Amino acid sequence: MDARVKPGHDDEIELRLSANARVPSMSTSTHDIEEGLALLPKFDANGLVTAVATDVASGDVLMVAHMNAEALAKTIETGEAWYFSRSRKKLWKKGESSGHVQRVRELRVDCDQDAVWIKVEQLGPGACHTGRRSCFYRAAPLGQTGSVALEFRNADKTFDPNAVYSASDKKPRG
Amino acid sequence: MDARVKPGHDDEIELRLSANARVPSMSTSTHDIEEGLALLPKFDANGLVTAVATDVASGDVLMVAHMNAEALAKTIETGEAWYFSRSRKKLWKKGESSGHVQRVRELRVDCDQDAVWIKVEQLGPGACHTGRRSCFYRAAPLGQTGSVALEFRNADKTFDPNAVYSASDKKPRG
Repeated sequence: MDARVKPGHDDEIELRLSANARVPSMSTSTHDIEEGLALLPKFDANGLVTAVATDVASGDVLMVAHMNAEALAKTIETGEAWYFSRSRKKLWKKGESSGHVQRVRELRVDCDQDAVWIKVEQLGPGACHTGRRSCFYRAAPLGQTGSVALEFRNADKTFDPNAVYSASDKKPRG
Repeated sequence: MDARVKPGHDDEIELRLSANARVPSMSTSTHDIEEGLALLPKFDANGLVTAVATDVASGDVLMVAHMNAEALAKTIETGEAWYFSRSRKKLWKKGESSGHVQRVRELRVDCDQDAVWIKVEQLGPGACHTGRRSCFYRAAPLGQTGSVALEFRNADKTFDPNAVYSASDKKPRG
């Protein structure tokens, strides 16, 4: 879905697909992408941008997933987080089976517009399909070489995923 | 580099490459990956995991980039952020040309170990190659359909990228 040619160091003419205006292609410079105010997402070969959801209250990263053009448009339109599941190859609304909807307080794009950061109000007890508030419940000790033993951090389960997700939704992440 | 087979909903036997122990392949279950304390990164077809760097003081997302096995190992070993540049196809240490090193205070992995979250102390005035503290200096208004006009947020430049980066390092992001 990405018709854009990877930019060089100069402002080369590029083709890219706009998720938003649904214009099949348009000429855009690196300057327009980085300094402009048009939403010009740089989708990868699979038509996806990376999406990082942080908890608007704590600042913690809740999850990292992906959005295709439709998920990004729906997130902007509805103010609730939609993603594209790479494993299930389908659009999904966060919380569609669990009820753990993410209300988006702010959506930002990065300099080259291949990543989206959403600050969310996480409804319900958590975002992670394993039953935790955040997907990032393990840390790697630093300053080590060789084999690394992770350590649990904020890893207590806040809900029972078997009670919340149906079998087909057991892996709702991207 | 990823020898892992995408898991189903059951604990299927999988093959994956450990960045850390450098074991060519090992059998690992979904339970081990999600609930275990072994670092078993799920590299994509290009040998990369997504890396999100947040400012340990403000909680803001500074940048989203990628790490290959070597970048991840070097980050863990040195406590400073290393990435793999997809555009330049090379390992790079954040700050190697700008001096804007990221001291890692904590490194976490997500449930399926295909994403890393590092909380960093950002040395120098900023992380973004455009001269801002964060790469996420534009927001999309919510509740809109059709064409979206971004708005600048915390977009003041904190340094002159032309003075900091050499021509070959002008696009140091992943």
